[in-house]
Amino acid sequence: MGKENQFVSQIADIESDFPQWYSDVVLKTKLVDYGPVKGTMVIRPYGYAIWENIQREFNARFRENEYENAYFPLLIPMSFMTKEAEHVEGFAPEVAVVTHAGGEKLAEPLCIRPTSETIIGKMYGNWIESWRDLPLRMNQWANVMRWEKTTRPFLRTSEFLWQEGHSVFASAEEAEAETQKMLAVYEEFSKNVLAMPVLTGKKTEKEKFAGAVATYGMEAMMHDGKSLQSGTSHYLGQNFSKAFDIKFTDKDGVQKYGYTMSFGVSTRLIGALIMTHGDSRGLVMPPVVAPVQAVIIPIAAKKEGVLDACRALKQSLTESGLRVVLDDSENSPGWKFNEWEMKGVPLRIELGPRDLEAGKMLCARRDNFEKSEILLDGAAESVKALLKEISENMYRKAKERMDSRIVNAETLDGLLEGVNTGNFVRAGWCGCRACEDKVKEFAQATSRVMDKTNSVKKCVVCGKESVHTVFFARAY
Amino acid sequence: MGKENQFVSQIADIESDFPQWYSDVVLKTKLVDYGPVKGTMVIRPYGYAIWENIQREFNARFRENEYENAYFPLLIPMSFMTKEAEHVEGFAPEVAVVTHAGGEKLAEPLCIRPTSETIIGKMYGNWIESWRDLPLRMNQWANVMRWEKTTRPFLRTSEFLWQEGHSVFASAEEAEAETQKMLAVYEEFSKNVLAMPVLTGKKTEKEKFAGAVATYGMEAMMHDGKSLQSGTSHYLGQNFSKAFDIKFTDKDGVQKYGYTMSFGVSTRLIGALIMTHGDSRGLVMPPVVAPVQAVIIPIAAKKEGVLDACRALKQSLTESGLRVVLDDSENSPGWKFNEWEMKGVPLRIELGPRDLEAGKMLCARRDNFEKSEILLDGAAESVKALLKEISENMYRKAKERMDSRIVNAETLDGLLEGVNTGNFVRAGWCGCRACEDKVKEFAQATSRVMDKTNSVKKCVVCGKESVHTVFFARAY
Repeated sequence: MGKENQFVSQIADIESDFPQWYSDVVLKTKLVDYGPVKGTMVIRPYGYAIWENIQREFNARFRENEYENAYFPLLIPMSFMTKEAEHVEGFAPEVAVVTHAGGEKLAEPLCIRPTSETIIGKMYGNWIESWRDLPLRMNQWANVMRWEKTTRPFLRTSEFLWQEGHSVFASAEEAEAETQKMLAVYEEFSKNVLAMPVLTGKKTEKEKFAGAVATYGMEAMMHDGKSLQSGTSHYLGQNFSKAFDIKFTDKDGVQKYGYTMSFGVSTRLIGALIMTHGDSRGLVMPPVVAPVQAVIIPIAAKKEGVLDACRALKQSLTESGLRVVLDDSENSPGWKFNEWEMKGVPLRIELGPRDLEAGKMLCARRDNFEKSEILLDGAAESVKALLKEISENMYRKAKERMDSRIVNAETLDGLLEGVNTGNFVRAGWCGCRACEDKVKEFAQATSRVMDKTNSVKKCVVCGKESVHTVFFARAY
Repeated sequence: MGKENQFVSQIADIESDFPQWYSDVVLKTKLVDYGPVKGTMVIRPYGYAIWENIQREFNARFRENEYENAYFPLLIPMSFMTKEAEHVEGFAPEVAVVTHAGGEKLAEPLCIRPTSETIIGKMYGNWIESWRDLPLRMNQWANVMRWEKTTRPFLRTSEFLWQEGHSVFASAEEAEAETQKMLAVYEEFSKNVLAMPVLTGKKTEKEKFAGAVATYGMEAMMHDGKSLQSGTSHYLGQNFSKAFDIKFTDKDGVQKYGYTMSFGVSTRLIGALIMTHGDSRGLVMPPVVAPVQAVIIPIAAKKEGVLDACRALKQSLTESGLRVVLDDSENSPGWKFNEWEMKGVPLRIELGPRDLEAGKMLCARRDNFEKSEILLDGAAESVKALLKEISENMYRKAKERMDSRIVNAETLDGLLEGVNTGNFVRAGWCGCRACEDKVKEFAQATSRVMDKTNSVKKCVVCGKESVHTVFFARAY
């Protein structure tokens, strides 16, 4: 096996052992490491840079939608959790509890936030007085903790980073509309930033957020055909405003409870983009969030002028706002090609004496391995155009793949066959919990989201009239 | 009392009741609120925007100094804390402890990080193999928790936000040099970003970080003459590398322990800038971190063209990268003047029919209340120049004030008199702990930092030969 294969050989085969492929790439590309406490992760610089890019892109979108960032405390009194009955039932089994602090036993145990509806609700209750204070919209970037039995870096960890948006409105209609609007922001973000197609829709009662009236989710299809819930938006009605006394004096002088909603995405998005785009050679980074968008590799680096030209190119690309690395290490070009391919850098630029003479550089795309010669003159604009094309092609490819893997089923056997062969299965559902549970038991698949229209006539389980058309899938 | 005084009257007098003035301004300007759990704070959007600006400015500086951001877990096994004897002694009394999670009692209690030398040291020990991996530099933005008896928003809260930088070097000299270098970055930041003068220097053994070989600090003088420790940089020697097995194979093939250092600043910086620059009317925001750099107030807003001109001005200033608010609310101009003054906005822009006719706008500075007319043509550049001047003037004013309030003392009585009248006191010290304790007992003052040169001959307590010249002060 040639030297250039030494990296590829370190990664498990993506088709035959996808879980091992995932562990291999996230560890070997230094995105992440396991933390000392079971279920925790350390986000290393190459992974954290993706998160910072995600944050920047979301902050711009949140600002446009009139969200302001704020920060609420990590520790929530246990008594807050119990104020909303469904909420505590859903989250109590997962919370981490602080019982001692400052050398003493606490009078009331405190839980580390698994989500912040309760503590933010409490503050909103203090702050809001009149209809003039509404709508109120805030977003928080924070760490949260949910104690999980089975964990995997980015996908499910006891501590993770996320954003949670929380809003209050005077009417149910406004709060419901905001729930849809922020789901649409997530969908647009997935497409244009992560190059990731998603299915969006309402969740069933069984799958909704604990304490919500309705949860809307977006689901992405991973390389193995399993689904990953990648973001949720919840309409909370008056459940939390009644629990935390979020009242306002309306224009008519009457005190009323507000209507709230919340929405969140987490570091899980990093897992989602890895498992959507990755291939047998490793990561394939969406250009908008790639920590390194282009790597410059000198060819015959010792030849006069080559390194200087590479440095000048790096500078001019960097000054135009691109994230660029010049790999001037001692390793061979072939070794470098493989390393940066595994790290998923969208564009590799090769520059050698002959290129220089011709005033060109060679660009190799990570998404489809196509190579093209580009003039050094005006390189920044050409590279930007190429990165845009890469992002669009990655989306198109993933979308075609997802679309081709959505199948219909009219029987449980058909549903099982569908998920067994790595598909999302569209099927009718009568709306009862027993039939939903039956799908889980029979096919180890869960309802991901409900389709916007009910196009299928009969329930895939009981054969009664279908109330919803549901996308079923195995899920992370 | 006129309408325009209604806000001013809500704030306690800054000279006679500084602690109450502080509480009043931080709450009434909606920078912060008290959290439900004692000692915690909620950072509201107006306060959090300052923190985001601080982060942006630091990130640029850290990148220049080759730091990469990463994220390490919140929970640290108790056994890690005990590996460095001084470290656990210093922090154990302040930690919050998680004893239960996921509905079960944990086998080993976990503490919420009060600082991350231990867990980062553990990971560095896993990652570093050879001299090629050094130096290793990372920075983390995170929440930390130290259970404190007496708390005040921003200044001392059980949970706070901070950055912590952690580096490993092959030699003591490099690690010591880095400790100084990052202290210098802090000092430059304080000056150019917060317009805040500081004293920097080495801390005494008594005041150093638990586990450090040496701590260097920067101290800022608050309005009442008390000192606020605003940032620290620690040389850790091999204390943590021995505790966490941070070893590397050197060029000579021999395994050696690395030398580490760390440095941190926190949301306390927000308290520092408030108490450095604030005046009887409220906040005075340093322009570089001000959430709102200029507020536009329409005069005779109903006259034709005024509001349109204000909107156009806002747009052109915003597009040039300035943070601008247009206050087109129903309130009177006088009411608005006071509100935005209390919020400390550096520049107030008034625009009315006569200004429009003359092609000018009226600019009123928050720092010295000077007014000037500025051409609407090229307004963005003029406003930027003015903001720069405001920042420099705020620094100059604060520096003159601090310099004029540093006095020398040769006796304990002189030292007491000095701190009683709101000064930092420069005095000789023999270097023994007993004399340092005596100053605390007699004058309720502590050693803040040691002067770079030992210019005073005798210890202010015992009269023996002075080993260090020390700045003593009352401190937050």
